[in-house]
Parts: sequence; C-alpha cells; structure tokens
Amino acid sequence: MTDKNQKPEANSLWGGRFEGGVSDIMEKINASIDFDKILYRQDITGSIEHCKMLVATDIISADDGDAIVKGLKQIEDEIEAGEFEFSAALEDIHMNVESRLTEIIGAAAGRLHTARSRNDQVATDFKLWVRDACDQADDALKALQMALVEKAEENAHVIMPGFTHLQSAQPVTFGHHLLAYFEMFTRDRSRFQDARKRLNECPLGAAALAGTSFPIDRHQTAKALGFDRPTSNSMDTVSDRDFALEFMSAAAISAVHISRLAEEMVTWSCAQFNFIQMSDSFTTGSSIMPQKRNPDAAELCRGKSGRIIGSLNSLLVTMKGLALTFSKDMQEDKEATFDAVETYSLIIAAMTGMVEDMKVNENEMRKATNVGFITATDLADWVVRVLGLPFRTAHHITGSLVAMAEKKGCDLDGLTLEEMKQVEPAITDDVFNVLSVEKSVASRESFGGTAPSQVLKQVSLAKERIG
Amino acid sequence: MTDKNQKPEANSLWGGRFEGGVSDIMEKINASIDFDKILYRQDITGSIEHCKMLVATDIISADDGDAIVKGLKQIEDEIEAGEFEFSAALEDIHMNVESRLTEIIGAAAGRLHTARSRNDQVATDFKLWVRDACDQADDALKALQMALVEKAEENAHVIMPGFTHLQSAQPVTFGHHLLAYFEMFTRDRSRFQDARKRLNECPLGAAALAGTSFPIDRHQTAKALGFDRPTSNSMDTVSDRDFALEFMSAAAISAVHISRLAEEMVTWSCAQFNFIQMSDSFTTGSSIMPQKRNPDAAELCRGKSGRIIGSLNSLLVTMKGLALTFSKDMQEDKEATFDAVETYSLIIAAMTGMVEDMKVNENEMRKATNVGFITATDLADWVVRVLGLPFRTAHHITGSLVAMAEKKGCDLDGLTLEEMKQVEPAITDDVFNVLSVEKSVASRESFGGTAPSQVLKQVSLAKERIG
Amino acid sequence: MTDKNQKPEANSLWGGRFEGGVSDIMEKINASIDFDKILYRQDITGSIEHCKMLVATDIISADDGDAIVKGLKQIEDEIEAGEFEFSAALEDIHMNVESRLTEIIGAAAGRLHTARSRNDQVATDFKLWVRDACDQADDALKALQMALVEKAEENAHVIMPGFTHLQSAQPVTFGHHLLAYFEMFTRDRSRFQDARKRLNECPLGAAALAGTSFPIDRHQTAKALGFDRPTSNSMDTVSDRDFALEFMSAAAISAVHISRLAEEMVTWSCAQFNFIQMSDSFTTGSSIMPQKRNPDAAELCRGKSGRIIGSLNSLLVTMKGLALTFSKDMQEDKEATFDAVETYSLIIAAMTGMVEDMKVNENEMRKATNVGFITATDLADWVVRVLGLPFRTAHHITGSLVAMAEKKGCDLDGLTLEEMKQVEPAITDDVFNVLSVEKSVASRESFGGTAPSQVLKQVSLAKERIG
Amino acid sequence: MTDKNQKPEANSLWGGRFEGGVSDIMEKINASIDFDKILYRQDITGSIEHCKMLVATDIISADDGDAIVKGLKQIEDEIEAGEFEFSAALEDIHMNVESRLTEIIGAAAGRLHTARSRNDQVATDFKLWVRDACDQADDALKALQMALVEKAEENAHVIMPGFTHLQSAQPVTFGHHLLAYFEMFTRDRSRFQDARKRLNECPLGAAALAGTSFPIDRHQTAKALGFDRPTSNSMDTVSDRDFALEFMSAAAISAVHISRLAEEMVTWSCAQFNFIQMSDSFTTGSSIMPQKRNPDAAELCRGKSGRIIGSLNSLLVTMKGLALTFSKDMQEDKEATFDAVETYSLIIAAMTGMVEDMKVNENEMRKATNVGFITATDLADWVVRVLGLPFRTAHHITGSLVAMAEKKGCDLDGLTLEEMKQVEPAITDDVFNVLSVEKSVASRESFGGTAPSQVLKQVSLAKERIG
Repeated sequence: MTDKNQKPEANSLWGGRFEGGVSDIMEKINASIDFDKILYRQDITGSIEHCKMLVATDIISADDGDAIVKGLKQIEDEIEAGEFEFSAALEDIHMNVESRLTEIIGAAAGRLHTARSRNDQVATDFKLWVRDACDQADDALKALQMALVEKAEENAHVIMPGFTHLQSAQPVTFGHHLLAYFEMFTRDRSRFQDARKRLNECPLGAAALAGTSFPIDRHQTAKALGFDRPTSNSMDTVSDRDFALEFMSAAAISAVHISRLAEEMVTWSCAQFNFIQMSDSFTTGSSIMPQKRNPDAAELCRGKSGRIIGSLNSLLVTMKGLALTFSKDMQEDKEATFDAVETYSLIIAAMTGMVEDMKVNENEMRKATNVGFITATDLADWVVRVLGLPFRTAHHITGSLVAMAEKKGCDLDGLTLEEMKQVEPAITDDVFNVLSVEKSVASRESFGGTAPSQVLKQVSLAKERIG
Repeated sequence: MTDKNQKPEANSLWGGRFEGGVSDIMEKINASIDFDKILYRQDITGSIEHCKMLVATDIISADDGDAIVKGLKQIEDEIEAGEFEFSAALEDIHMNVESRLTEIIGAAAGRLHTARSRNDQVATDFKLWVRDACDQADDALKALQMALVEKAEENAHVIMPGFTHLQSAQPVTFGHHLLAYFEMFTRDRSRFQDARKRLNECPLGAAALAGTSFPIDRHQTAKALGFDRPTSNSMDTVSDRDFALEFMSAAAISAVHISRLAEEMVTWSCAQFNFIQMSDSFTTGSSIMPQKRNPDAAELCRGKSGRIIGSLNSLLVTMKGLALTFSKDMQEDKEATFDAVETYSLIIAAMTGMVEDMKVNENEMRKATNVGFITATDLADWVVRVLGLPFRTAHHITGSLVAMAEKKGCDLDGLTLEEMKQVEPAITDDVFNVLSVEKSVASRESFGGTAPSQVLKQVSLAKERIG
Repeated sequence: MTDKNQKPEANSLWGGRFEGGVSDIMEKINASIDFDKILYRQDITGSIEHCKMLVATDIISADDGDAIVKGLKQIEDEIEAGEFEFSAALEDIHMNVESRLTEIIGAAAGRLHTARSRNDQVATDFKLWVRDACDQADDALKALQMALVEKAEENAHVIMPGFTHLQSAQPVTFGHHLLAYFEMFTRDRSRFQDARKRLNECPLGAAALAGTSFPIDRHQTAKALGFDRPTSNSMDTVSDRDFALEFMSAAAISAVHISRLAEEMVTWSCAQFNFIQMSDSFTTGSSIMPQKRNPDAAELCRGKSGRIIGSLNSLLVTMKGLALTFSKDMQEDKEATFDAVETYSLIIAAMTGMVEDMKVNENEMRKATNVGFITATDLADWVVRVLGLPFRTAHHITGSLVAMAEKKGCDLDGLTLEEMKQVEPAITDDVFNVLSVEKSVASRESFGGTAPSQVLKQVSLAKERIG
Repeated sequence: MTDKNQKPEANSLWGGRFEGGVSDIMEKINASIDFDKILYRQDITGSIEHCKMLVATDIISADDGDAIVKGLKQIEDEIEAGEFEFSAALEDIHMNVESRLTEIIGAAAGRLHTARSRNDQVATDFKLWVRDACDQADDALKALQMALVEKAEENAHVIMPGFTHLQSAQPVTFGHHLLAYFEMFTRDRSRFQDARKRLNECPLGAAALAGTSFPIDRHQTAKALGFDRPTSNSMDTVSDRDFALEFMSAAAISAVHISRLAEEMVTWSCAQFNFIQMSDSFTTGSSIMPQKRNPDAAELCRGKSGRIIGSLNSLLVTMKGLALTFSKDMQEDKEATFDAVETYSLIIAAMTGMVEDMKVNENEMRKATNVGFITATDLADWVVRVLGLPFRTAHHITGSLVAMAEKKGCDLDGLTLEEMKQVEPAITDDVFNVLSVEKSVASRESFGGTAPSQVLKQVSLAKERIG
C-alpha cells in the first residue's frame, strides 16, 4: 500500500462540508483499501457495464462512455502490472479507481457515478467476487473428489477395522471409508452451487438505498454481468450480506469435514496405527527430533477449521441487530470473507495433495482387524439368520461368546465348536463361515454397504456424479 | 421423566459382559431420553416401515411383523395419551420403545432390530424430525411474509426517512422498507427448501456402519418414509450431521434478519422516533415505572438470535475433528438442534404477530423527513440531469448548498433561488420541483425502487412469489 | 411448571394500564419462570436482607419487616418441599414469590419492593448464584486435581512415549503427563477465583437504574449477603452481565482442557494404543457389537466442550450492541449460564471419576517407546555434551544415524559402534549409555522435567498447591 | 516478505532425512514468517537470555556466548532498520534469526539451540508478546477511563432520560451514564491485570516437551525475562495457549462494552435523538448524500466486536480436543491473537478519541425528559414515603394517574390536584415537589445513584481508582 498522503483529496470526495481533518486513527480504522483492492477486477468490470448501460439509456453521451471505458481498462492494466499506486487516504478500491480515472480522462470521470452509489457498487463487486469463490470452491472440491474416488478404487478390497468410538466395530474396506468423504464433499459442492444460484441477483441500480430517478435499465447490467436478474428491493440490496454468510456457512461445514479426514490422517499415520504413510511433501521434520515425520499439513487443515468457524461467527455477530440500510459495521464483511475463502482454498488444496500422495499400509490395516472380536456382529447375524432367534437373543449369545474368547485370550474363531455349544447348543460349524474378516466384508452387499462389489459400484456412480 | 430405577435392565441391553454398575454420573451424562423422547413419532414410524420391509423381504415372518407393528402403534398411543413411563436407565427413546415392545409382544420384539442398528435408526429419526422442522420453518416464514406484504401494501404511500448509518439519507416509503424484509425471508425460505432437498436420503440400512448381510430393500424403506433415495455410503450415513448444521446455518442467518427488524422496532417505538406503536400483546409494563410500554417481544427476538448463533457454533465445534464413524460426542447434536428449532419458531411467530399488530404513526414518519436535507441527492441528480454536469461536480455543488442551508437554519427548499445561484449560477427555479419529499419518492421508479408505484408492483409480485 | 392461568393477575402486576390481553406466544417467549425458579434461594435470601435493611433504616416498620421475613421463610420451605405452585403467568421467580407473599401476609407484602426494582433484584440473585457456581467449580476442580495427583504419584516411574503431532518424540513418564493437566486445572481454579472476586459487589439499591431517594444503607445489604461492597454506579449495575460472561469464559477454557484429556483417553483406550483401560462405570456396550467397550463418557466430555463454547458465544452475541440500561435481551443470560454451569459440573465430575477409575497398562506404554527412535534427542544431546559439537551439527549426525537405523530395520541401539563411526568417527561406546529409554527419562531433571525424581517433587508441591 | 527460494536450506534444518521436496502448497500452509516476524524482539531477547544462562551454567563457552549475543543484537538492528530479508522457506522467525546468525558468526550459532526447542522458544516469545499486549491494553483503557471521567465531571449536572428497553424510564445525569462505562472498563483492566499475572511463568527450559538433561538454570532465565518463576510441567508448557485465550476472552468482553457505547453514540447522534454531535474527525460524509455526518468510527467499533468474538471462538475451536503436547494446529494461535490485539487497540483508541471529541447537546437531552411520564417512579415513591402505602399499591395509583395524563395529553405535573384526588384522595399538593425532573435527579442520592452530588463523589473516587 502506498499512502500518497492525499487527505485533502479524500476529504473533498465527501463534499465541501468538512472543516476538521481526519485523524490518523480514523484513517486506520476506516480505510479498507488494504484489503478491498482484491476486488479491483470486479469493480472495473461492474463500472464498465454500468457505463455502457448509461450510454445505452442516453444518460451519458457515447463519447464520455468511450472515454470512461478506455480509462477503466487502462487502470485494470496498471493494477495488473503492479504499477498502480493505492492510497489509504482514498479509503477504498472504488475511490482509488475513480480518482485515477479523473487523472486520466478528466471531468468526464465524474459522470460514471451517475445513478449509482458506493452502496450498490460495493454490493455488486463483493457479490461477483463471492460468486467466483463459489465456482472455485466447486472446482477445488471436484479435484478432491477425484483424488478420493481414485484412491477408493485402488483400495476397494483393502480391509481395515471400521470404528465407532475409535473402537474396532466391524471390518470395512478402505475404499468404502474414503467414499464416505466423497459423499460429504458432494453435499458441500451442492451447497456452494445453491449459494451461487441464490446470490445471483444484481445489486446495481439500487443506488444509495432508494433506487434512482434516472431511467436506468437494471436488466441490461444484470445480464451483462452474468446475473439472472436485478434484485427486487433497493433497501434490501444495500443491506444484504447473506451471500457472504451463506458462503461461510457452507465453508464451515465443509471445513468440519476436512477436519475429520485430517484427524483420521493424523491418527492413521501415528506409529500405533501405522495405516498410512504421508508423503514428505506434506510432513515436516523436527528441529530437535530428527526421526519425526510430522503430519503438519493435516494438523493445519484440522486447526484451520476453527478459523473458518470463527470467521462465520464473526460476521453473524457483526450483522446482528443492524438497522437498515447500510451501516459501516458491514465493512467488516470483507476481511472475514476473504480470510475464510483463502483459508478454505488452502485446506482443500492441501487435502487433495495429501489424499493423492498417501501410501496405504495394507498389511497393517488388515492386521488391525485381528483384534477386538470384530466379526461379533456377523456371528449375531448368523444366529438370527440360521437359528432363527430374535436379534436381541442372538446379541446376548454373542456377548457370552465374546466374554469366553476374551477369557481364553483368542479371537472368536479361536473358540471350538464345543465351547460355543456351551453357550448355545444349536450352533453348528457352519458358523465358522462368517467369522473370517474377508467373508464379513464381502457379505455386506446392501446398497451403500462396505462389500468390495458395492464399493466398486459406488466408485463407478461417483465418477458420473462428479460431473 | 420417570426413572423406574431399571439399571439392571439397561445393562442387559448392552449384553452380558458388563460386571460393574453404571454410576449415577454416567447415567446423567449419558442418558438422552429427557430430550430425545421428542422423536418418538419419527422413531415409531421408522420402525414400522423397517418392519414392513423385513416382512416383504422374508427376513422376518408376517406374523412377527404384524405383532411388531401393532405393538408399536399401541406404544405411540400410550405416549400421546401421556401414559408411557420413560426410563432414564433405558437411556434413549429407541431403547424405551423397544423395551416396552418386549413387554407387550414378548420375544418377537427382538426381531425388529434385525439388519438395523441404533446408529442408522437415530440418523433416520433425527433426519425425519429436521425435515419436518424445515417444512415448518417454511410455513412459518410464509405467514410472516404475508404479514409483511399486507402491511407493505397498506403503507405503500407512507413516507419516512430512509437511513444509512442511522442518519437520514433519502426519503423512502414504509411499504418499501417492509418489503426489504420480504426479500430476506424469501432467501431464508429458499435455504430451508434446499436444506430439505439435500437431506432427503434415507439412512436406514446403513446399520452400525458397514451395511448389512441381510437381503434388505433400502429403496422400499426410503420410499415409504418419503425420502428420495437411500444414502450411498453406510459409513457417511452414520457419521453425518450436516442436515442439522445446515438447518442451523439457515436459522442463524434468518435469526440475524429477525434481529435487524426487531432492532428497528425497538428504535421505531421509542419516544424519540415514535414511528410505530407496538400492541399491548407484545409489550409489557414495568414493575416500578407504570408508564412504560416495553418492547419485550422485539428485544427477545433480537437477543435470541445470539442463542441460535450459539447453537450453530456449538454443533460445529462438537463435530470438528471427529474420526469416523459414530462417536458419542454426536449425541450433543440433538439438544442444540431442538433448542435452535424451538427458539427459531418462537421468534418467527412473535415477529409475525408484531408485524400484524403494529400501528404506523404516519404523521411522525412524514415529519421526520423534514430534517436532515433529505432531498440533497435529488438536488444533485437534478444538477446532473438538467444542467448536464458530472455527478461529482453536482455533488460538490449540493454540499455547498447544504452547508448554506445549515448555516441559515432551514431545509434545502428554504433557500432562495438567489442564494442557490451564488453557488451555481445555472440553477433555475425548476429545482424546487425535486426538493419535495413526495416528488423525491415518486421519482425513484427504477426496478425495485422506493416509488409507491414500484412498491405496489413488488407487492403484487410478492403475492405470487409467496406461493 | 403449573400454569394456573393467572393472566389477569400478571397483567395487574404491570399496573392498571394494559387493555389488551397477553397472547400465548408472548407468554411463551416472555416467561422465565421455567428456568429462573432455580434462583429461588438467592431471591429469598436477597429479599430478607433487603427487608432487614428497610427496617434498620426506618423505611418500613419492624412489624411489617417481621411479617415479610417470616412469610419469605415459609415460601422457601414450600419450594424446598415441592409444594409451591409456580405460575408462568407470573413470569418469573420474583413475581411468583411476591405474589405468594401477598397471599400469606396480605398487603404488607407490597412494602418489600420499596427502594428496589426487579432490575437490581435479578442482578443480585443471579450474581449470588454465579458466585456459588464459582465456588463449586473450584471445589470440583480441586477433586479432579487430587485424582490427577494421586494417579501421577502412582505412575511417576511408568514410561510412555511423549508425543508431538501424535508422533513419538521423547520418552516421558505417565505421571508427568498427568501433571500437565494438574497445571491446566490450577490455572482454571485461579480464573474462577478471580472471577469471584471481581463480581463480588452488591447490586441491591441500584433500583431500576438510577438509584433511589429512600435513605437506604447499601453497605448493610452488601455485607449481609457476603459482598465486599456495593456497586459504584447504578446504571452499570443493572446493565452488567460481565460476571456471567467471565464465568463462561473460564468454563470454556477449562472445557477445552477437559476435551484434550478426553481425546487422549479415547485414543489411549483404543486397541491400537491400549495404554489404559477405562472402567465399566464410564463406558458402554453396543446394541449390535457386543465386544465394544465404548468410552462414551470421555466422548461426551469432549463433545460438551462445544456446548460450553456455544453458550459463551451466545451470551457475547446477545450482549453486543445493547444500549444501557436493562433490555429484555438480557433475559437470555440465564439459560445460557445455567446450561454452561450444569454441563461444566457434569464433565468435571465425569472426568474425575474416569481419572480415578482408569487402569494403566504399564507394559503397553513401555512397549510403545520401542518404536520411532525415541531417544534420538538424547543421542544428539550426547554429541553436543561429550563431543562438544554445536547442536545443529549434532542434529544432522543424529538424522543420518536414524536414517541408517531405519534402513537396517532396528532401533538406534541396534546400530553397531562401527556403523555409527561411519557417520561420525568421534562417537564412542559411551553413547549407548543414553540410548535406553529409562536413562533418557531419568536424565531429564531440569525443573518441571519428566524425570521420576522431578515428577515426585512436583507431586509433593502439587499437594501443597491444591490447598 | 522476501522469498529467497531457500528450500534446500529449509529442508536441511529438518535433518538429512527428507528426500522429497516441499510443495508450494505446503510452504504456503506451513510457513508462519509472514505473521510471526512481529515476534522478532521477543525472540531475540529470549535467545540472548537463554544464551547467557548457557554460559553461566558452563554449557557453552563464554566466547561462543559473546559471539551469539553480539550476532543477535546485530540481527535486531537489521530488522529494525528494515534491512533483514525474511524467507518463507525458513518458515518462521526463529529459523530466520538462527539462519542469519549462522551467516554472521558461523558454526557457533549452532550452540544457541542447546537445551532448547522451538516448542519452548515459541511459547516464550508468544507469552512475552501477549504480556506486552496486556500492559498496553491496560494503558489504553486507562486513557479511555480518563476521557470518560473528565466528560462525566463536565456533565455531572446535565439531565437526560435514563432508558430501559430504549423507553424513557427515569431521569438521570449524563455524567452518571458515562460513569457506567467507567465501571465496565475498570473490570476490563482488572481482567487484563489478572491475565498478566497468571501467564507470568517462563516456558524456557521445557525444551521439546520433556525438559532437558543439560544442567540449565530455569530460574535465571525466568528472572531475566521478568517472569515470576519457571513453569512447573514441561509438557503443559509446550501445550498451553491459555494466555492467548484468556487475553481474547477479556478483549471480547471489553469489546462488547465498546460495542454498547458505540451503539449509544450512533443512536444519540441521529437526528431523532440529537443528544450529541460527533466530531468531524470520527465521522465521514457520503459519496451521494452530501448532508450526511456518518458515525463511521462508532459503527466500526461496534462491528469489530464481532471480529474479536470470532477470533476468541476460532482459537477455542482450534485448541479443542488436541492431544498433548504440541500439534501444528496450534500455529493458528498467532494470527487470531495478533488480529484480536490489533483490532482491540484500534477500537479503544477510536473510542477514546470519540469520547474526548463529542459535543453534548444539553438542551436536547433535557427536552427529551419532558415526554414519557419520566417521574412516575418519583410519584410512586412519594406515595409510599408520605402516604405510607405499600409500594405495590402506590404503583397501581401511579399507573392510573399516568393513564389519566395520557388521556389528557399532558405530563404528570399537568394534572390538577383535584384530578389526582379522584384516583387517591390522600394526595396533597406536596406531590408536585417530586414531579420535576431536576428534583427527581437530585433526590437519588443512594450510593452509586444518579444525583449530581453522587456523580461528583464517584468522579473523585474514579480519579483515585484509575491509578
């Protein structure tokens, strides 16, 4: 940021009325140019289309219009070339651009703001930016989904313990486990898509808050900027930040999903689990413990979910209880949203890389299913299916057999038929057919179940659903 | 809640394995029956359809199926008649119902839980409940929208100051102001509708986490319970609470809208504004200051937005970093959601009543537009339109005229033409045509603008959009 | 709650002015008796002392005073005996008590509210309640500290891996690990003690907001109720809810500590770690997987931290931006605080029980230190200390030795001296003296370090510090 | 930030073990130098004292020690002169400093990290920084208190309506109203002071997590750095971020206070209230409405409370459920805290300026007490005091008189004695002595009450309490 110390100019933008100066603290608390300059492209695009509409409706002349458009394009070039000098005294991106336009084309620049206000201008810029963020989130999630589906396909037959309460519950396939996250990110994409549709109404023309008496054509600017229609109420238009809140809600829910996968990666890659090995690209060493392979990227993904939740919370609090229409509190919308978007894009990218890179320790996963009587449910189901007993009875029988095996220090298939018959005489040696982990997994063929056949079917459907 | 001190029974549901007792503190922290009994109807409906499917797929006999369905219906009747004795020792609604079913129909009750687990059962019950909550939110918002539209129509011509920064900016109509909230609640309804669509996949059949080896028909139960399809991944199914988070996100955003209208009502009904009078039904007196007419209901609506934001935050935090699949942390989902739904329904209902009841002090609103040079923008626009000067120049001229009027102690139309000409010689007496508040409002006919004609047009569209 | 349908009565408390009735929705949103009846003891105690002061200052007669005090004590007895009928129409505990007092002693009851308002009354009741909650939190934390210290003493020599990033870093003792939590809860207690000191100023006498013209003695009531002094500004007094916010801040930070220990317990008790076994009292079985020993209580402790964070957040949001003095939004303070206190007391109690009950699998912990080159730092430190090389150089040497051992498939002490000399010729066989886990632990004798001698010293200090 | 593309170097800090490179995304998510360079002074001071202790305990030589200290001082100078080139590849401030130290003094630099780890180093740096932030917050709040007390003294006799529910309740003095905020900020200062005391234990010497086998003197470094003592448990030391959480809790509560005063300033300065005029220094104009004097700074103070609440929430969420000891999630502590501190310092400074600058419209305030039967409580109290009736009876009488006055369209002192006697025959014309606003205010002389005499007494006490 370059402060050209242009306070007098800034003052003059507010009209001829202010006698006192603007204190330093005020400039610091009030100026937004440090963060809102990120909106320069949206601001210039919006201004160009507004200008074209003013010409089309004969509100300004074609000559003035041409000069303005040309000037704006030059400014865009200057910014992208890093040659533009931003001024804090000019407060924000809108004033910085307009002030430079005046330098380039003279007084005609002053016609651009006809039938417009900073209130509808900033709402337009910010909406366009959040709309892009929705599209980018969708793309990034798609890449993550592809990484997951590919990894799931490779691991459709790899058996691991399925956990509840971090206790081994039933054997599952690793492919199945990964597809659980595919579902979460599918819902996330759908939320961003819905958010995008809902926000896609154009604020331009709401002016300060009441609309305008100039004969503008709001449908023209809406269409030119890719909006579905203009907004329906000018006061709502300049008071509304739902689009930012909804983006952050979707990002917060998605970040919670990321945090869950990250937590699992941290657990899976500790020595006690040793289910996966994360790549050097996403781990670090220790300054004092040379043997460490720390899953830093996964931990940061997990930790940064707190940051996104915090940003959502921050803007909800800021918007709470604000009278219509625009209040300066609403300037707080941008940093919270920008930070949430940047953080979110970073953790999605890191997670995609980690999923692609991780090596699966198939043997360790399989070995872990040998503890914890993991086929107890299969045994109970066999009792129901073959002996015809009610599930609750079967459940009690299984509980007794587990207790027996625990005492004996073996797994369920380590019990002899005789021992089993002590608990339930009707048991036959057919029962041993369901006590193997492989058979357990293969048998769970209900729709969406963990059997490799089902996983491959869902992989195939997933590829279609990714779009 | 009636605690029949049935700890031994409760223990026995967990199998024959536990030797120690369950401490009091454990019962208190673990039992959910106090709050999850609200799910009884969803639980029984889900069980009935699960049972019918088990019969249709020959997993259990038709006789057992009939007995189970009949027993479940009896339990529903008992609960609705207030005759059911809930037991904390039986932990939750699912075990309370199943235990009673056993009392009524004997061992056959134990067949109901075949090919099912509490994990998919609770996900189904809770989803059905949240789905209803989405529908009810939509209905409640529709009623609020109707109240707003009706009030807007009545007040399409009532003029008041439009505020930014709580400073008079431009005159608007009160109908226009109310329609701003119509737009917010339209977006809110749309969010609840999207949430409903997204959640509408049936968890039943995911079983504990891995699916089941029984030949169940998940499409049958999904259809019977009004779901669009079964879920696609059993592990995601029992780990997912997105539907609760998404409901609460939508409710939090909507509660912020409510808080804004509530804040305005509090402000509008203070003596200094006196724009509206709230009805006795939604105000209270003071125990010590008999003259007070306190806008308690509006304040509670405003304050309770904090509660809903807190509940959303609470569940996001709880879900953060949880390994798949089910962990008991997730039991915290229900109280947060139930409280958010109840709070939300209460503030929507209260707000609907307050909108319907409020009396509009038309004269006070109109009088308030006489201060603050509220037609300054109209003056600036006139300079642009009639004198052809750039907007920024017009803005400076207007600023000088406002300063002049402020010094003279009059409004803009209190300046003489001569005085105006001192600032800008080209001004003619045509300018006085735009300095009246009524003309200002009538002129803002851009789409979505504040002109009464536009307001009535939007009222008419709103009636269609309400559906 | 018994609703005696006393709306007319309720109305009459608000004075003779209201013509309309109070709608059902209003009663539901406005009444607080359902939750604030928990304050009955504080309310009655506060009223008794207020009454005695009114007598002492000759504002009311001794006879009226005696009647009031006697009546209030009778009401307290009725409530504690469960014989009191609470009425929602009477809104809150204060009106319920006063209304009953009128029934008992007649018109003299009306003198109790002299020089008082519900605003200072509720602030007093609530402060007294939160003050008790601070004391109880301190006591509960003390019990938890004692459980930790005792367990730490028993396990001062038990060796386990110390983790960073959930990767084995250096060996530590389990006693040392447990004492880390002792420190956290020491800070927590200190926070509650500070909160108690800060809140200990008496609101009584602030009246509605402005103080009173009656010649009351605020120092008398302050002293009688155990406050250090009366508050200094009547407007702040009735607007202030800092004491609830500060309690919840301290509880939220402490709940985060609890959540960390709970997370560790869940991890430690999974089959892959198997460091501890949690007692049957705090685990549950599964309805479908009989072999499970689910750490439900630990998971609920972890999950409920979200709830307390949510409650803190909720009240911060509610208080944000409220104009002075009392607004009805502030009624939201109580449910948030009550829930936070109850939740917090529950998780502290559960955690205390879990710490007391847990069995330590000493062998498994020790075995876990055999992987991961856990004495690499000791090796590096040896190189620094004995060979005199800079730490960074030592670090590189150690890294190379770890890589060599990893390739060879052994731990560091599995390398021969010759192999080591290939990396750094100066190494001698003295190095093997630091490669054992036991020697590593014993050597870390810096103040607060993990050596058993240090742990026992800190245990001894801790016993003194508990107080 | 200058990225010297030193990835190989960075890698080499992690030991000789990594074969793969560090991806761009990893560098972006992992590097903290962009924000933690703010800690340079604390880092260098901490290193200097650590180095001196290493010399004093003969762990390193005096010559090496001198070289290190000299090199560190040179680096501090370079940073302060803006000549230091920070490198993202070197991740953080600690590695940037150490790497530069090596450039300056060669291999001896590698001795500085003896008996230390980044874990205790970063905890020390961050604690020192937060300790400074506590001191600065205390100073800033003191300045704000002085502004308030001065303004309160000037306005000890200025009468305004005291509000509850934004309804006129009883007359108060503006000085009294301002002193309410003095009390809030007094509690805030006390919270920061307590936080400072609690954090003041030195982490240095905890090393990575287990302490160290070098014979260090932790008491020496603690004392040299102004800490009260070293921390008592090395694992807690590197896991603890309570000090940041507690700072942010105190800041969040204080920000809520600021938001309340800001809300009042916005309300007071709107045309309808017109109680104060904010200075040009803290208001802005409008780009389209030249007459506006927008209270931007007050609105930003109000809005930014959401940001601080969000930051607190963010770190609580991030810390929730983290296993001991250090996890990379904890790197998220700094940006949240830095932003909270900067935001908080900004709003305190802005608020101090606004309080100092605001002009009080004494006449408007006084005029506003003429509506709303603001002395009704005085009337009720008169009935109690003079007629000896119970307060509740007096309350009913007053309610009837207010209704009568409302009907007649006058204030209470507009009723004749005869009219009053219709309601309560015992009323005498002495009653008119309490119906004036001035007498009402003067009569509320209870401790902490609104009478000018009390306000001046509290002003005098406040000056002492400020310290």
